[in-house]
Amino acid sequence: MRLLMLNPNTSPSFTNRIQEIARQSVADGTEILALNPITGPRSIESVYDELLSSQGTLEVALANLDACDAICIACYSDHPAVYALREITTKPVLGIAEASMVMACLVGRKFSVVTTNDEWVPLLEEAVKRYGLTERCASIRATGMPVLALESGDEEANFNAILRQAQLALAEDAAEVICLGCAGMSGLDKQLEQVIQAPVLDGVACAVKLLEGLVSCGLSTSKKRTYTQPRLKELVNLPVVFQKPYKK
Amino acid sequence: MRLLMLNPNTSPSFTNRIQEIARQSVADGTEILALNPITGPRSIESVYDELLSSQGTLEVALANLDACDAICIACYSDHPAVYALREITTKPVLGIAEASMVMACLVGRKFSVVTTNDEWVPLLEEAVKRYGLTERCASIRATGMPVLALESGDEEANFNAILRQAQLALAEDAAEVICLGCAGMSGLDKQLEQVIQAPVLDGVACAVKLLEGLVSCGLSTSKKRTYTQPRLKELVNLPVVFQKPYKK
Amino acid sequence: MRLLMLNPNTSPSFTNRIQEIARQSVADGTEILALNPITGPRSIESVYDELLSSQGTLEVALANLDACDAICIACYSDHPAVYALREITTKPVLGIAEASMVMACLVGRKFSVVTTNDEWVPLLEEAVKRYGLTERCASIRATGMPVLALESGDEEANFNAILRQAQLALAEDAAEVICLGCAGMSGLDKQLEQVIQAPVLDGVACAVKLLEGLVSCGLSTSKKRTYTQPRLKELVNLPVVFQKPYKK
Amino acid sequence: MRLLMLNPNTSPSFTNRIQEIARQSVADGTEILALNPITGPRSIESVYDELLSSQGTLEVALANLDACDAICIACYSDHPAVYALREITTKPVLGIAEASMVMACLVGRKFSVVTTNDEWVPLLEEAVKRYGLTERCASIRATGMPVLALESGDEEANFNAILRQAQLALAEDAAEVICLGCAGMSGLDKQLEQVIQAPVLDGVACAVKLLEGLVSCGLSTSKKRTYTQPRLKELVNLPVVFQKPYKK
Amino acid sequence: MRLLMLNPNTSPSFTNRIQEIARQSVADGTEILALNPITGPRSIESVYDELLSSQGTLEVALANLDACDAICIACYSDHPAVYALREITTKPVLGIAEASMVMACLVGRKFSVVTTNDEWVPLLEEAVKRYGLTERCASIRATGMPVLALESGDEEANFNAILRQAQLALAEDAAEVICLGCAGMSGLDKQLEQVIQAPVLDGVACAVKLLEGLVSCGLSTSKKRTYTQPRLKELVNLPVVFQKPYKK
Amino acid sequence: MRLLMLNPNTSPSFTNRIQEIARQSVADGTEILALNPITGPRSIESVYDELLSSQGTLEVALANLDACDAICIACYSDHPAVYALREITTKPVLGIAEASMVMACLVGRKFSVVTTNDEWVPLLEEAVKRYGLTERCASIRATGMPVLALESGDEEANFNAILRQAQLALAEDAAEVICLGCAGMSGLDKQLEQVIQAPVLDGVACAVKLLEGLVSCGLSTSKKRTYTQPRLKELVNLPVVFQKPYKK
Repeated sequence: MRLLMLNPNTSPSFTNRIQEIARQSVADGTEILALNPITGPRSIESVYDELLSSQGTLEVALANLDACDAICIACYSDHPAVYALREITTKPVLGIAEASMVMACLVGRKFSVVTTNDEWVPLLEEAVKRYGLTERCASIRATGMPVLALESGDEEANFNAILRQAQLALAEDAAEVICLGCAGMSGLDKQLEQVIQAPVLDGVACAVKLLEGLVSCGLSTSKKRTYTQPRLKELVNLPVVFQKPYKK
Repeated sequence: MRLLMLNPNTSPSFTNRIQEIARQSVADGTEILALNPITGPRSIESVYDELLSSQGTLEVALANLDACDAICIACYSDHPAVYALREITTKPVLGIAEASMVMACLVGRKFSVVTTNDEWVPLLEEAVKRYGLTERCASIRATGMPVLALESGDEEANFNAILRQAQLALAEDAAEVICLGCAGMSGLDKQLEQVIQAPVLDGVACAVKLLEGLVSCGLSTSKKRTYTQPRLKELVNLPVVFQKPYKK
Repeated sequence: MRLLMLNPNTSPSFTNRIQEIARQSVADGTEILALNPITGPRSIESVYDELLSSQGTLEVALANLDACDAICIACYSDHPAVYALREITTKPVLGIAEASMVMACLVGRKFSVVTTNDEWVPLLEEAVKRYGLTERCASIRATGMPVLALESGDEEANFNAILRQAQLALAEDAAEVICLGCAGMSGLDKQLEQVIQAPVLDGVACAVKLLEGLVSCGLSTSKKRTYTQPRLKELVNLPVVFQKPYKK
Repeated sequence: MRLLMLNPNTSPSFTNRIQEIARQSVADGTEILALNPITGPRSIESVYDELLSSQGTLEVALANLDACDAICIACYSDHPAVYALREITTKPVLGIAEASMVMACLVGRKFSVVTTNDEWVPLLEEAVKRYGLTERCASIRATGMPVLALESGDEEANFNAILRQAQLALAEDAAEVICLGCAGMSGLDKQLEQVIQAPVLDGVACAVKLLEGLVSCGLSTSKKRTYTQPRLKELVNLPVVFQKPYKK
Repeated sequence: MRLLMLNPNTSPSFTNRIQEIARQSVADGTEILALNPITGPRSIESVYDELLSSQGTLEVALANLDACDAICIACYSDHPAVYALREITTKPVLGIAEASMVMACLVGRKFSVVTTNDEWVPLLEEAVKRYGLTERCASIRATGMPVLALESGDEEANFNAILRQAQLALAEDAAEVICLGCAGMSGLDKQLEQVIQAPVLDGVACAVKLLEGLVSCGLSTSKKRTYTQPRLKELVNLPVVFQKPYKK
Repeated sequence: MRLLMLNPNTSPSFTNRIQEIARQSVADGTEILALNPITGPRSIESVYDELLSSQGTLEVALANLDACDAICIACYSDHPAVYALREITTKPVLGIAEASMVMACLVGRKFSVVTTNDEWVPLLEEAVKRYGLTERCASIRATGMPVLALESGDEEANFNAILRQAQLALAEDAAEVICLGCAGMSGLDKQLEQVIQAPVLDGVACAVKLLEGLVSCGLSTSKKRTYTQPRLKELVNLPVVFQKPYKK
């Protein structure tokens, strides 16, 4: 099977890291195709950024739909492209935030997410609410460091900032499990787990395993109600590729 | 004061209708500027459509931000442009779905929305959940008629289909108030009200009054937490206008 | 249009202040009639006080129903007269607590209320629950100063106590917007806004704008279910005026 | 011990019936004092009625506070006098709606209430919400017969109307237990139980047992936060008896 | 009437204490039969302990079902034997945790539980959620002392640890009432009440009064849906007594 | 890796079926060990049955803990052994009900469960509540056929009964995905999927994939708070094997 890991921002270094983690996580026989759009913001830290990244992201997805068995939107947000893609394909589609939260619920009663900027906190609170996981979420905590600092910044300082928030989540918020709340944190899970002595989840790895599971069970996105295929309509001044997904 | 009524689809006839209703609703001294993007889908009936409409919609908003006091996204959905615009401006921003639901709560304990296609039902259920109004919403009901039928179709059949669902909402779902769930239904409120003997709310009119109220009270969108201005980042292959809203 | 601002306590100085704020908030053509009952407690700080104020308040309302287009109960509580009046008239009726909370939701994701005595905290928590706004309310905070201190006390101390709680709401409770939780705080909104750099809402001003909006949209209270007109019954030893509102 | 059964309407026949049921329910040594106010509506079917009954009801309670160990407001509503009395006394205070719902939760997972007029449905839905019992309530159902029909009307027709709704609650709403939703239905519980083969609860009997339990355990209403004693204030043109409960 | 107080652990000293408290709480004419199983753990502090105690506990219950009118599972947990017994008998069955929480809701708006080990906190949070009382529960607090320390340990230290948590619950969690969260704390309620000046509830006493109330009202566990009698099936290698409760 | 599929009832034919489905679902290199206890009920359809099955089930688990990497309790209930096992091991433990519901949420917005006896409906409603998935669950529906009929009964009648409820769930409850609510239904998923044209989930297959995913990600059950290892205590008259899991 082949999984499309679609990084919706335009930082190839993030895409590479995602590809690397994904490849470490796959079962025998799973191929990883990691891509990012060629238009859009370098990082995603707001709804505005999400919307600017959406057209490019959908374009990459449309070009690769036939070549993959499932799609992961590899951004730790409730990226709207997840919902749009579920509408236009029956192949499983999953974001890494939902993936890690769902897996977290299987190894503890309450999880916390440790993310980067403060801006992420309300965005992820809304994501938790949308997934219907409010009761299982202990807290969303931010290190206060911007996403891009994760690749350019001081590695030890980054780790310590994440560690600090994870420890506070366990001690003060009654968390039992920690989700790493940014694709850029991928790879730090085992190191952190050793220090805090509680499970730490990497969204990319979780999404790979869940998508493998869905594909292996022969499951596809339901076309009843929510993710029904959009009905045909005229598109004005948009690339013709966007016309294809509509119901004929 | 000047209100920007921004229809996010590319049907000028809808934009005209929105402008007309808005102008009937304004207080003395309020000007209405009704616009729509020049790229994007003719109508919006899915998340996919929303995303295809977003870039064009943001572009119109950015071009007219300085010329208006508040912005209405005149599409009866939880259009993501509302949230993006709240991030990039302090001027009040409001969608017509939220506007009509909020006003409905002031004249009854439970409201129902009567919308067009079945696809809208789950989308609007999610909107209600996001607004935190689940307890006040009796039901979302659909006539099963596509959005565009509202302007091209048989007027009487349209009205009767809406009437039927409104009556069922009152009789079976314990609704006390009806929200017209599509910008294209604007103008039918008083006619429907007379038949069902319960308040019927038009989202465009409600948004106009709420935005007038916010502007008149000198209120602007909070920049604390959720709608904080997005931080500066590089945009790749996007029109330069999208760079402007970032924090310097 | 004429709005009845009905202060349910018997302090004319409060009524005057409410009238003044209301008059500053109105659109062209809106008249304000501010009244209070001639029986009842000087201030309202408990359910007991609410009940002692109810008969007098209803009496004033009944005497002025025909002379106004909408009624505001100008007390920052979930005053039961709001519900009784919605039953006995089709004209819009609104309390200032609900008004400010509803408007707050349009300019931020979470609001806090800063009120006076500690007794108000549980009362307003119940109000929030009743309005169905629990998810949008960050906290209810009290300055610990009794209501009447707002007019007789040290103005600067009052302001500083309110400011302190507003700052804590923003810093510790994740509030993005502040509602002033007492009719007696009316007029402090803009001063506070400047210090805390977040929207501050005055319930009297909000109620004026919402009622103007409802009246201007031709909306009236639904008579389906919750606010249906009470059925005729005998009243024992009560002023005859109370007989009038019953269904004939 | 002595329990004050306070019927807040002015129908002595109801008061007598309440007294009779209460006396059948008491333990050895419990005395019942059943009273009603001398002012107010003959029956209570709306918030308007509740408010018109409140002053008279509080007056009776104040006159008898010292002579009783606990107070039951014997009206199947969320009557505001319950909350006012909890503020002004430490003696346990309980309404019959809350009493029967609480007891119902001990003998089944979900209860339904069968009440009289349709107007009661939204009022009791709000009561359930306020008690925090939403998850345990299967439904509120009304026979459509006015309260006063219970004493003047055709007894068999009344019973059959109640039976019909109880059966529907079990069959369609997943109820496991039925609460009789009107003080006027008191005494029908065992007869109904025999037909529907499920527990049927009488609010008066439940309140008697719960108040006996509270008094016997030496429990009194907490004076922390919600039911703290109201602070002293001037009362204008009200009987002097209402001054007594204030904090000195 | 006779109440079976069934302590599910194998510590007779606990059973004696429970019997003593229960006897102090009964009405005239109520007999108390306090028993514990002869197999199982000495104390219960986990789901694992609950399951090891269940077979022995059910065996005692089955042997004494005919000799009692109601059963109390006298362990401050959401012990699964409560639900199993409700299935196999129509006699009222109640745990002491649910009993105290329900009574607490009648004397204050929010209760906190003060229990022993930290392990109890998540277990009791789940219990509260299952009872549907989440909105009424201010917090679950633990002293950090193991259950068995309550009988062997330093009495004053125990009391002070409980007092400390009760005070924190009132001051920081907005609790108005305290439930003693362990059968082993029985008897400390009045002493604690005097210090904290707020109601303190003992689960054993509360259960006695609620069960007396249910029996006295002639109420039995509903056999509709949740607690329907289990259908007949073969039991393999289990004592024959367990066969009896199945539907024939 | 080796997964222990532990069927908690004493029907070896069910165990064989579970083993078969599990083996069809595994990735290369995963071994399946399917076992059932030698004491306990032939089928599980009540809390009473669950408790009678618990000791035997724990005994099998304890005997095989070292020989496996993760444990599945292969009964479509919220079997308490799941929680007990999570306390006494760090290896992942999962029930098939939770497994299928979690996977269902990834391919649709709302799922329904189609189970066997009516008794299961309230039990599974409680399970959904405990998992925190209430908002994602459209309904629990029962065919009304007892569990054991699934192996002895008319296969076509069984399938048609399941099909009927699945169709009703889609048509009337707004379900988008169907979970097969009984281990005995395993193997019918693809056949049903073809008829209803919506995803159908088999709990055994889902649990296998989720446990493989957890093991492959190196994740273990958190020992913070909820699933902390039970503290040492004396066990009276129980097999010595049950002593082993306690903290030393």
